[in-house]
Amino acid sequence: MKNFEYFTPTKIIFGEDTHLQTGSLLKSYGAKKVLIHYGGHSAVKSGLLEQIQTSLKEAGISYVTLGGVVPNPHLSLIREGIELCKKENIDFILAVGGGSVIDSAKGIGYGVANPWTDVWNFYLKKETPTDCLPIGVILTIAASGSEMSSSSVVTNEETKQKRGSSKTDLCRPKFAILNPRLTFTLPPYQTASGCVDILMHTMERYFVNMDTLEITDSLSEALMKTVIHNAPILMEEPDNYKARAEVMWAGSLSHNGLTGCGTGSGDWACHQLEHELGGVYDVTHGAGLAALWGSWARYVYTENPGRFAQFASNVLNISQGENDEQNALAGIQAMEDFFHSIHMPVNLHELGLHLTEEEIHDLAFRCSFEDTRTIGSFRKLNRNDMEKIYLMAR
Amino acid sequence: MKNFEYFTPTKIIFGEDTHLQTGSLLKSYGAKKVLIHYGGHSAVKSGLLEQIQTSLKEAGISYVTLGGVVPNPHLSLIREGIELCKKENIDFILAVGGGSVIDSAKGIGYGVANPWTDVWNFYLKKETPTDCLPIGVILTIAASGSEMSSSSVVTNEETKQKRGSSKTDLCRPKFAILNPRLTFTLPPYQTASGCVDILMHTMERYFVNMDTLEITDSLSEALMKTVIHNAPILMEEPDNYKARAEVMWAGSLSHNGLTGCGTGSGDWACHQLEHELGGVYDVTHGAGLAALWGSWARYVYTENPGRFAQFASNVLNISQGENDEQNALAGIQAMEDFFHSIHMPVNLHELGLHLTEEEIHDLAFRCSFEDTRTIGSFRKLNRNDMEKIYLMAR
Repeated sequence: MKNFEYFTPTKIIFGEDTHLQTGSLLKSYGAKKVLIHYGGHSAVKSGLLEQIQTSLKEAGISYVTLGGVVPNPHLSLIREGIELCKKENIDFILAVGGGSVIDSAKGIGYGVANPWTDVWNFYLKKETPTDCLPIGVILTIAASGSEMSSSSVVTNEETKQKRGSSKTDLCRPKFAILNPRLTFTLPPYQTASGCVDILMHTMERYFVNMDTLEITDSLSEALMKTVIHNAPILMEEPDNYKARAEVMWAGSLSHNGLTGCGTGSGDWACHQLEHELGGVYDVTHGAGLAALWGSWARYVYTENPGRFAQFASNVLNISQGENDEQNALAGIQAMEDFFHSIHMPVNLHELGLHLTEEEIHDLAFRCSFEDTRTIGSFRKLNRNDMEKIYLMAR
Repeated sequence: MKNFEYFTPTKIIFGEDTHLQTGSLLKSYGAKKVLIHYGGHSAVKSGLLEQIQTSLKEAGISYVTLGGVVPNPHLSLIREGIELCKKENIDFILAVGGGSVIDSAKGIGYGVANPWTDVWNFYLKKETPTDCLPIGVILTIAASGSEMSSSSVVTNEETKQKRGSSKTDLCRPKFAILNPRLTFTLPPYQTASGCVDILMHTMERYFVNMDTLEITDSLSEALMKTVIHNAPILMEEPDNYKARAEVMWAGSLSHNGLTGCGTGSGDWACHQLEHELGGVYDVTHGAGLAALWGSWARYVYTENPGRFAQFASNVLNISQGENDEQNALAGIQAMEDFFHSIHMPVNLHELGLHLTEEEIHDLAFRCSFEDTRTIGSFRKLNRNDMEKIYLMAR
């Protein structure tokens, strides 16, 4: 097991009606003028935005709003947000939405607090931020875990690059309000994609080639089983509060670092492969991950079949095979069956992408940063490996 | 399930040689003059204290030391620490030890930062602290979870009252350094007591009479299984790094709030019953808990046999009984067998206390705050109930 650091300073306020505390919470953090950052019209139509604005008014807090965040959030809106914050002397950003909105808020927070460079340099990892505007979250999609994480993933729509920022704890939200009821109206496809994303945040940390902490393994397995149990319930009963709560809390715990304690920096190859897809073809992140995972798993499992067999046994109750290899493969198949059961794709065709070999060659070239990097740690993957996996996933 | 808040701002630095970072860490938090607070001579003899002092000197940080913290830490030393901190203009407290040292440090931190009242008033819950000196921890005993918790339990040796302070997040340590190797030299009895304490922090939250979050249940069960698996290993191999690491990380996670998400405020009756024992008879906390738990469990399980049956099944692999009641009782017995297997007592005799009925009557009277409070939530217990449980545990 590796040495590790664990730092999750975000205060979670979880449950019914908790979003009504927004104004008083912001006040307790000393916020004077807030940017309310959100996505599409659902926050407006549902009345959520109005409730939040009322809460801020009652607490005597000024605000301006900036909507329009799209999935795979755009650098251009972040630039617009940075200018708006500077003009309006914003001292706190309130992200109302899911991972895209939170990641966009983090980009704005970095941009405002680090005027000495262009914000995109943090995503190109040419520079590291030294500060960030404080961020609060009202979560409306359980998926990204961005409400507790140090991640921000943004798409430069001009260059079609989808990139994660340099990791710092500066952008971890000060607080996150998690009211499962706010996720009731999510369409099934978004709900299912979110569940895959949650699972993958733990799986990327779980599939490593080293001695791990038994407690981290068992917490991870418990978390994955919870999501696998509750995701199908949500396909049938989108307004099941309990199931929404299970998935929502799993989402935060899956990406706050808990499931990576002692497992080094994890694998993350699937995320890198998906980021390239998302940047170029603008697919839904979780669905993109589901479409790639099985191919990645079959490509790499021979490095350590025992790890995949443990996953099969402890997460999916599969242990009837004659050896680790058989159980590993049966587990991968069972996971793909699970993805299918919640109407998620297990290949690029099912994701709606019909790519030529040339397009796949280009994807791998991009994903390898023009043949200059490898990805993954369970098995290190070069451009050639990436191309093979994309092809297997076709 | 209940709404909940979850706030664990303590930065964990876990692993080999991590204590050598102490000086630079303190510097990063802006510490100028530090109180190094510790217990007995083991920190001196082992050379740990010297390593830490060297680390501080290298970082250019001044310090004074205050040792002598005993198990069930004394109010008098806290008062001494408060005066010392004021005289020396201390701005950061470094606790080097286990729960007693950390709890003592929290008492000092509260006392220095709240000169408007006597510090014991926070433990009598007459007042609530509004501030606390920042605290860092180098953990040498895996048990209390105080390194991430908002708890501080102190004994007023004049009145023989052992009391927990008003809960605030102010005293949660800024950082905690967890190096499993620093726990290698703990005697088996302390190691086993620590394991019981860790288990009980989760069990006190787990045994509740309400709908719980499935994810909290399964994380709690995973944590308890890890401790039950590794505690016997440590009885045989006290210098098993991996097993020490499992137990150490379980200790922090068990009391930082994670295992109580959605379970309300938990039960805590066993802790209250043990606090009275500890205050009057100065027993080791974990051993005291082990001596009481089975009696408490048999007294209350009928309120919800299903919960105890779930514990028996998911934590102890016991599910052969004809009904919940049988499985519940088999689970309680199996837990006591586990306590015995690590040489922990399951009654007061085995704890070394041979109490008269009058002494037990007096304990219950004290534990009920002279018949003015009930304890517990799984089943609310009045003075009469407490007396019965103490008698069952004789």
